[in-house]
Amino acid sequence: MSNPSLLILPGDGIGPEVMAEVRKIITWFGDNRGLHFDVSEDLVGGAAYDKHGVPLADETMAKAQEVDAVLLGAVGGPAYDDLDFSVKPERGLLRLRKEMDLFSNLRPAQCFDALADFSSLKKDIVAGLDIMIVRELTSGVYFGEPRGIFEEGNERVGINTQRYTESEIERAARSAFELAMRRGKKVCSMEKANVMESGILWREVATRVGKEYPEVELSHMYADNGAMQLVRAPKQFDVILTDNLFGDILSDCAAMLTGSLGMLPSASLGAPMANGRPKAMYEPVHGSAPDITGQGKANPIACILSFAMALRYSFDQGDEAARLEAAIEQVLSNGARTADLLGEEGATPLSTSEMGDTIIVAL
Amino acid sequence: MSNPSLLILPGDGIGPEVMAEVRKIITWFGDNRGLHFDVSEDLVGGAAYDKHGVPLADETMAKAQEVDAVLLGAVGGPAYDDLDFSVKPERGLLRLRKEMDLFSNLRPAQCFDALADFSSLKKDIVAGLDIMIVRELTSGVYFGEPRGIFEEGNERVGINTQRYTESEIERAARSAFELAMRRGKKVCSMEKANVMESGILWREVATRVGKEYPEVELSHMYADNGAMQLVRAPKQFDVILTDNLFGDILSDCAAMLTGSLGMLPSASLGAPMANGRPKAMYEPVHGSAPDITGQGKANPIACILSFAMALRYSFDQGDEAARLEAAIEQVLSNGARTADLLGEEGATPLSTSEMGDTIIVAL
Ligand SMILES: CC(C)[C@H](C(=O)O)[C@@H](O)C(=O)O
Ligand SMILES: CC(C)[C@H](C(=O)O)[C@@H](O)C(=O)O
Repeated sequence: MSNPSLLILPGDGIGPEVMAEVRKIITWFGDNRGLHFDVSEDLVGGAAYDKHGVPLADETMAKAQEVDAVLLGAVGGPAYDDLDFSVKPERGLLRLRKEMDLFSNLRPAQCFDALADFSSLKKDIVAGLDIMIVRELTSGVYFGEPRGIFEEGNERVGINTQRYTESEIERAARSAFELAMRRGKKVCSMEKANVMESGILWREVATRVGKEYPEVELSHMYADNGAMQLVRAPKQFDVILTDNLFGDILSDCAAMLTGSLGMLPSASLGAPMANGRPKAMYEPVHGSAPDITGQGKANPIACILSFAMALRYSFDQGDEAARLEAAIEQVLSNGARTADLLGEEGATPLSTSEMGDTIIVAL
Repeated sequence: MSNPSLLILPGDGIGPEVMAEVRKIITWFGDNRGLHFDVSEDLVGGAAYDKHGVPLADETMAKAQEVDAVLLGAVGGPAYDDLDFSVKPERGLLRLRKEMDLFSNLRPAQCFDALADFSSLKKDIVAGLDIMIVRELTSGVYFGEPRGIFEEGNERVGINTQRYTESEIERAARSAFELAMRRGKKVCSMEKANVMESGILWREVATRVGKEYPEVELSHMYADNGAMQLVRAPKQFDVILTDNLFGDILSDCAAMLTGSLGMLPSASLGAPMANGRPKAMYEPVHGSAPDITGQGKANPIACILSFAMALRYSFDQGDEAARLEAAIEQVLSNGARTADLLGEEGATPLSTSEMGDTIIVAL
């Protein structure tokens, strides 16, 4: 049987830097645990634009459709700020999500014990925090038509369309309930049903899907209140189900609660492939961080934990994922810190590659 | 000359309870400072629905158009959860905003010194916080057409439309820059220009208006990053300019940072009337709080501070507004606390009306 395949898209900014550490980890799993992958690498975002004039070449898209999992670094940067909307680095990422039909974006917001002091929030409010946000990723205002900037009378108007079908809501909801069954058995669905009809439909469908999971407690919250509750008392949540745009904002808010944005991975999952595993792309929650690019300061842990999620969801290697996660917990308890995990007056931080090496030693 | 006119719409839940305290304050200003108002009162939200079958009667709407300022309590509650969308309590509020054309919603997020310990955030991150969010309030996805739930093939689709014209963006932006001139001279505009064309237009127009205010430093931030930065380092902001939907979420998030949601007022301002003052409605940021309704637990300060904003923006009584705000600061430093401002094991809280009385004594 051939090895499972992995397409690596390092992208822009610190993407290539953190991905280099993941490469080391992948090699370690081959050498020490007999887990071999067919790894290929390609361009996305600004890097793809520089070479091909588009943020994702058709050949890259085709490869992404064929592999068992895609691992993406980050896209974007100031060099591309003035590009036309249609070729901006982000469009490469959005094309991958849409054409691979990765409708369920899993964004854990976890507070690592060793880092609880580092959050903006008081320690007792975040210590032990473990939320999973399920964000619908292929529809909503990100992709709805009509969209654009149009002439109207003697001025212009900017239009985007929020648009959700029942089946789109249903499959995202189902993935949230499935996850909740393996966690704390609570789903909180967030929308603005008091203002938006798309939110009314969202609430109705979430309720209907919830009936299939009588063990799971379903609640509903307006998204503005959700943002508030995330800051006030985040531990009330287990799984949060929400749409593409609210999910974008709420997951960033939740991620920041933990104080460890450089630590948070994500998985974007689609329908099952022939091998029974979902189509999947994994990426750190953080962006391309142009301010620290090329300085060896980036924290590779979010990207490494994204690979751990790949081990779990795409390669059926839950034990190996747990091994990698445990190694990371351990180096953190031992005090290993990249610059983002140190206060102003902290000790000397580890560089990106020193952190990668330290994790490998702990493995 | 006739007295300035004020229409009071207490609404639902704790709305009438907190408004009763504002009434006392208004009486105090008449008796002691010679400030007399023609006060009328009417129904909005569920209370209006109960009487008229609609969340805002046409006569009430007409009155609101005529007065110098409207003061609103809160709308909504579980009794109205199953009402049809078109008559939900919230529609009354949205109709007022839209027909009075109150395009600029000012939401201060201030951390009161005496309450800095009460925030979820570490004290040094929020102490002294003083942000003003300017939220566009009459357009965007709240009002854009087409909207609704439609049949499509053999399923339904929920649709809402995000829609901004240049002139809508322009007037909201201008009000943010005007405010910044009287504050810290910084505006941060938040949208999702990396994903939404309406955000591209937003950024372009904000930049153009900014050129008229060379003293004000303008920056742009994606709304997801904005949510993150609000939690990470909120003091970096002075004025935040954003659209209706992002503003809804970001302002709730910002409000919660201060730990004093029961403390935060808002002003919704429109175009100047014949007297030169803007059309205006004032309301607390908090909602109708059905869980504590009728128990005398509500904190009346947000509503009283909303009246202070009315004194400042509608009645040209900045000094009297400052007097009222100072009285509130003082009672807080003296330790006066309603239940929401006490931890679990706190001392006995003041009731709603005790808090009102205490503030009057301090005046
Ligand atoms: C880069 C951008 C297009 C993207 C999004 O808005 O989805 C990012 O913010 C994210 O959350 O993954
Ligand atoms: C009650 C609701 C319609 C309203 C809104 O969404 O604008 C509220 O959340 C607010 O922020 O004033």
